[in-house]
Parts: sequence; structure tokens; C-alpha cells
Amino acid sequence: MYSEDITKAMASGGIAVGDTVSVKGGNISVEGELMPKTEAGNDGTLIIKLKSGYNIGIVFGEGVSISRVSARSAPAAFPFTKPKANTRLPNVTVLWTGGTIGSKIDYRTGGVYMTVKPEELLYYVPELSGIANISINHLFGTSSEDLTHLEWQKIAEETAKAINGGARGVVITHGTDTMHYTASALGFMLKNLNAPVVLTGSQRSSDRGSSDAFLNLTCAMHLAAKSDVAEVGICMHASSSDDRLSFIRGVKARKMHTSRRDAFRPINDRPLAMVRHNGDISYTNQYRRVAQGRSPEVEVSGKFEPKVALIKAYPGSEPGVIDYYTGKGYRGIIIEGTGLGHTPVSIEHEGRSWLPYIKRAVDGGAVVGMTSQCLYGRVHRNVYKNLRLLSNAGVVYCEDMLPETAYVKLGWLLGNYSGDRAAELLCRNVAGEINERVSIDEFLD
Amino acid sequence: MYSEDITKAMASGGIAVGDTVSVKGGNISVEGELMPKTEAGNDGTLIIKLKSGYNIGIVFGEGVSISRVSARSAPAAFPFTKPKANTRLPNVTVLWTGGTIGSKIDYRTGGVYMTVKPEELLYYVPELSGIANISINHLFGTSSEDLTHLEWQKIAEETAKAINGGARGVVITHGTDTMHYTASALGFMLKNLNAPVVLTGSQRSSDRGSSDAFLNLTCAMHLAAKSDVAEVGICMHASSSDDRLSFIRGVKARKMHTSRRDAFRPINDRPLAMVRHNGDISYTNQYRRVAQGRSPEVEVSGKFEPKVALIKAYPGSEPGVIDYYTGKGYRGIIIEGTGLGHTPVSIEHEGRSWLPYIKRAVDGGAVVGMTSQCLYGRVHRNVYKNLRLLSNAGVVYCEDMLPETAYVKLGWLLGNYSGDRAAELLCRNVAGEINERVSIDEFLD
Repeated sequence: MYSEDITKAMASGGIAVGDTVSVKGGNISVEGELMPKTEAGNDGTLIIKLKSGYNIGIVFGEGVSISRVSARSAPAAFPFTKPKANTRLPNVTVLWTGGTIGSKIDYRTGGVYMTVKPEELLYYVPELSGIANISINHLFGTSSEDLTHLEWQKIAEETAKAINGGARGVVITHGTDTMHYTASALGFMLKNLNAPVVLTGSQRSSDRGSSDAFLNLTCAMHLAAKSDVAEVGICMHASSSDDRLSFIRGVKARKMHTSRRDAFRPINDRPLAMVRHNGDISYTNQYRRVAQGRSPEVEVSGKFEPKVALIKAYPGSEPGVIDYYTGKGYRGIIIEGTGLGHTPVSIEHEGRSWLPYIKRAVDGGAVVGMTSQCLYGRVHRNVYKNLRLLSNAGVVYCEDMLPETAYVKLGWLLGNYSGDRAAELLCRNVAGEINERVSIDEFLD
Repeated sequence: MYSEDITKAMASGGIAVGDTVSVKGGNISVEGELMPKTEAGNDGTLIIKLKSGYNIGIVFGEGVSISRVSARSAPAAFPFTKPKANTRLPNVTVLWTGGTIGSKIDYRTGGVYMTVKPEELLYYVPELSGIANISINHLFGTSSEDLTHLEWQKIAEETAKAINGGARGVVITHGTDTMHYTASALGFMLKNLNAPVVLTGSQRSSDRGSSDAFLNLTCAMHLAAKSDVAEVGICMHASSSDDRLSFIRGVKARKMHTSRRDAFRPINDRPLAMVRHNGDISYTNQYRRVAQGRSPEVEVSGKFEPKVALIKAYPGSEPGVIDYYTGKGYRGIIIEGTGLGHTPVSIEHEGRSWLPYIKRAVDGGAVVGMTSQCLYGRVHRNVYKNLRLLSNAGVVYCEDMLPETAYVKLGWLLGNYSGDRAAELLCRNVAGEINERVSIDEFLD
């Protein structure tokens, strides 16, 4: 609720939240939509949404007045009509899963909710219809933190169905928080992939002036419609400006910033391609190409073992957590170790050495994989004595694979193979997740 | 063991591992020390350590011969004599804790062991004695993955003792893997700090030609002897070249690469200073300054609650692990959530929502803090509905603090304060670990 002063001024002017108002006072004169007080905001500050989409706050102090320009209009019937198919354009299927790209600000709380209809975004981005004939398949409207392997399987199946049904490419709109987990899962689950599969989303909701939703969707559509990359990747801003977007191999991608539009980075890899708003694509890495002519159908190898854990090793960390997981029937554990792939192993600190716990888990049939919390670089099983102790205990060193990717990969491997075979494949490249060599240029860039 | 061919050639030439040998054949002619076969190496490849410190491998094929130049000399008595104190130089105490900077290759295994005596490094870096009068205090010879809060307390006490005893600054040599955890712990534990405390180490052992040990130690010594930063920081290479090193606030530092010399980066912060080999220091951030004149003694607030865990939330993650920890008497949990600070909360995926587990832990008196696995950026407790659900359940949102720092901080807070007070202080800046605002320039740079 706004302050008593503001509430009074609104009452006397017949003003309701959502109305277009004019606010004047001193050297201020603005017109825009009156927003509700946000939960965190000061109750004496008017929040006005300008036509640009930005909100400004104006302290309702002496000399400031507010008057109504027009009442909040009832939302018009949605004016979208599906464009006619253009036989000269490729067919692209959009799989809609939710996330910020499908969200709007809720006026009551100032929070973001999943309320945009897919068609609405196409209406706001008419150029999409000039790139491809678009079919939209609304799968979920879910925040990405709530997705699980069940949704990964569904997305994989719908992707395969779309491609086998004639789509030249697939765009998947998705919340950004776990987009790299989903992209990794699709990278492993889709067999004989012969089309670009492009995940995209936005860091700012699409009703904000600074939203990255439109450009991300446009560039993702260009990639799906034109690129010859037969891989699963993420298309998001490459820098804080709007000049180009990167297409990053899903199994090598990571969200590295909580809020920036260029939050996604390739780790131990280069982007597959850079894309511009006008559709220019420049390839910047090796990749699997779309084969010419007839190719086998895309198949889904979607089985997944959910009893896999991702745990972090750190000074003072409690190795008993391994027993906790194996006791619950877990068949795989990925450790995010320190440096080259360490856990505490000293016998001087009683009960804090991870070695006996790891040995017990491996002897009991679990697969234990090692990655690094450094993220960049490669783990190594024999530079230091402590690494050899872990390796001899049966820990699989996962090369330059990301911890999150290793987690998804191990769940997928254990869903489809025996434990022994899963352990073998964990440290071998299956879908681009392990690079033989990493150029020194690929650090933090 | 080398191959039979090599073993025979060594026997007939009276050659032992460690001898200086000459290897000739085709267009190859090298002289150097014969190294043992490494565990991972091919047994038909001679490993020769050149005078430069680099090892090369030569396939012992047709036309290649090996002959002895000189026998391995018995190690000379160590020639180090402590330089006389120069009253015009400041006093700096070096606390020696182990790590790669204090290590050498073990010829038997090719592995790295902690064998360098502190004096040895001073002998190899004579310029150190031109920077300060150096006292060396050998605390441990430990790989950093095996350090715990017990060692952090000991290092804090020895640091305080050194400064209160007249040291102008302190250099701490340390393994790199957990250097940022130790630096964070010291940042919280040292009260009334009135001198630079500089942690350094190396990514390559000091008997290798490419070792970063010498330059790191020299620049750390310059900082301890001359800088007016009254904080705990990490001094390591700022780039892959040797031109400058950065001094990074310990609570904002993170090891971001498994092997590069410039692995340490400030996250959501700028470096405190840049340092050159010649001792030039340029300050690049705000910092706590060394006070002029008499100042109170440095005190150690060293209590630490080891029953704190750092756990990661991800798609499919098992919230029962929270019960596991609280059941073992854990009083604090730091979650590395996704994006702005999420865990799964959906009730549609039965048993996978973290909400009831978090509520139960908080109601039972535990402090639960939220950080982001993105690392860069800031968590936020009310942009999305799911964030507000977690926040309302009592989760403390830790601003732009690193997960590792939050873990150390919470252990320290619970060692020194009540749970309620610890929860209050967790999201307030205590030692530079929380920045009010983060410049957009500070991402991945």
C-alpha cells in the first residue's frame, strides 16, 4: 500500500492503480501508468511506468501533484492472427517451457509471474514470421528451477517429434537458471540429431523496456532456420550490448551471472557461432554438421537415473554425506572438488578424510566422478599424491567437464548402461562435453 | 620402469636415473638430467630435464643413443646463511603452511611432494632480502585440501603474534586449492588488523622452469613490506604473462582455473592493487588503510563452528540432505542455489521441494543462507514468487557474497554469536565480503 498522503490524493482524483496519470511538481512532469507500490519500495514514492517500459519512482513530497489522464483500459481481445505459411521459408517448431521470457510483472506484488501466452510474443516480434513458418507447442509454464529429468524427457521427445515431422530446426524457450542443465540433458538424450536445437530465454521479463527476450528469440530463430549446426546449444547475449549473441554448446555452457543479459558463457570451449539481429551467423568452433540428403530419424535415449547427487568438497566438508546418498540407493555421485580434483584425504583430521567413504561407495557399485569447483581447466588424476589416492580408490576424473554437465551425464549414463560401462563412458567424450585440449585463450572470455 | 631397450642401454652405459646424460640421434642432441619414467608416460620415451627446468621426452628408437656425462651428484650441504638484519628495511614474517610453492617433483613417481625447506626458497630468491628483514615461521607442510578451521585458527594466531611483535606485514605461503577459504577465514578472524596480510602460493612447483613461485613470493613481499592495505588478500599472477600480479581481497577471491597461473580472480569486486616485480604498487579499489601512529593490538576472534555445510541445489536435487545435516547437529547451511537464489520448490514434483525441509531446519534453530552458483552477481529475495517463498521460510539472502565465503563466514559467526545474531550478520558486510553495489565492469574480467 502507498502512504496515506498518496492514498488520499488518489481517492480525491478518482485514480486507481493501472490508470494513466500525470505527475507534476517542481521541475518534474511525467505521464505514465501508475504502478502499485512494490513490496520492497518506500510507500511515499509513486512508481510510474513510462511508455519506454521503464519504471521511475517519484517522491510524493510537497508541491507534487497527481492527476488522471485516462482510466485503465480493459485488456483488448488479443489481436494475433497466425500468419499464412510461406512455402519459401523453413519450418521451425518453438517448444515453450516457461521462464522469464514467458513472464510479466504482477502489479499486485511487483514480482514476476508466468503469464505471457506464446502467441503474444510472436505478436510483439513480427519479424519472426519473416524468418520461418513457426509452430508453437506450449509444453509448460514453469520456472526453470522446478524442472526435473521428467521435463527433460518430455522436451527431448517433442524435439525429436518436431524434427522427424519436418521441422528444419527447434527453438526451446526456457528459464535461464537451469537452461544449461536442460541443454546438457538434451545433448545426451537426442540421437542422430540432424537439426539445430536452440534454447533461449531472457534475463529481463518481456514487458520491460530493457528486455532481452525479443533479440534472443529472433537470433535463436535465425539459428534454427538457417544454421547447419546439428547440436543442442544456448543462444543468449554475448555481451552487455545488443550487437551480437553467442550460440554455446549446451554441454559446455554455464550461467555465470545472476542478472546480466550476457550471463551464459562457454567454459573450456569456444562459442559454436556468433549471431546478429539481421541473421548473420559466423561460426567460431568446430561442430557437428547437418547431413545433406536423407538421414535416419532422430531418436530419444531418454532414460535417466534420478538417484545421482552432485556434492561439493571443501575444507571441513563432511564425507558422511556419501553414506547418506548410497544409503538411499544412490548409484552415482559427482564431486565438485577443489583445484585439480581434490577432497580432504588427510588422516590427521579424524573423520574428515573422504577416502574411506569413497572406497566404500565404489566397492558398493556406485560410480563416483570428480570435477573441479574452479570450473575452468581440467582435473587430473596423478599430479599430486592425494589425487592418486582418490584415483586408486576408483574415482573417475572427468577431464574438463563442468560439474553440472557431469551430473546430468552420469544420470543419463546410469539410466542407459551398467555401472561399469557408465564409469568407462563418464570420462570419454560422448556429446562434446569433453575437449581433448583446451586453448589457453578460453579462460574467462 | 623404462622399457627393456632403455634399461639395457642404461646398464651398458653405467647410467642411473639422476645422472646427467647426453642423448643423440638423427637431428637430436640434448644434455640434461635423466628423469625416471612417469607413471603415465610411455616406457619407451626418455624423459630429460633440461637446464631450463623443462622436461622433454625423446622416443628411444632406432639410431638414438644415450651416454653418461656425469654422475648424479650428492646434494651439497645447503649453502644458505641468513642475511644480517638491515635496520632500514621493514620486518616481514613469512608463515609457511605448505602447498605447491613448498614442493618439488618426486623422481620416483613424477608426483609433487612437500619437500622444499623454507630457507631454500629464500636462497633461490635472494632479492627477497633486499625488500625486508624476513623471519620464517614453518607452521605446516600441508596440501591445502587437507587444511581445516583448526589450521585457520593457528594461522590467525601466528599472524596476530607476528604483527603485535613488530612485523610490518605478513606473507603466508599456502596451497592454492583452498587459499581463498583460508583468506576468508583470516579476514573474519583478525580484529583491529593494522598491517597487510598477503597469501601467496604457486600453480607450478618451484623446481620447474615455468614456476610462478618466485615472482609470486617477491610481489607478496613487496605488498607486505610497503603497502598500506590493512586487509587480508591473495597475491598471484593477474594474467598469463609475468608483467603484473593482482592483490585480491580474500573474502572476494576465488580460484577459477585448475592450472593457470592467473587462476585467482576477484568476484563482484575489483583487485585491491596491482603489483610489479620491481615493487611498483598501484591501488585499484577502496580498502582499509594502515592507521598511522599507535594502534590497538591485533586480536584473534578465532572461534569456529565446524557444523556448517555448503550444499548445492540443482534440478532433481534431494532436499533430504538438509535433514541429514541437522540430524547430525549442524547449526548452519549455505545453499548454492541457481540464478538469483533458487532451489526447487514445486509441489508438483513430490518430495523434491526444498521448502518444507528448509522451514523445518530454520524452525529448529539452524541458519540457512542463500548464495548463487552463478558466482557473479547478486542473489535477490523477491524478484520471483519462488524467491519470496524461500525468503518467507527464513532463508537469509547473502547479497553478492561467494558461496565459499558465506560458508566460512557462517562457521565463524556461529562460533562467536547466537543463531539469531548470526542470521542477522550473515547478510551484512563485516569484512568486505558484501559490496553494496557492484559495477557492471566486474564480470569475468
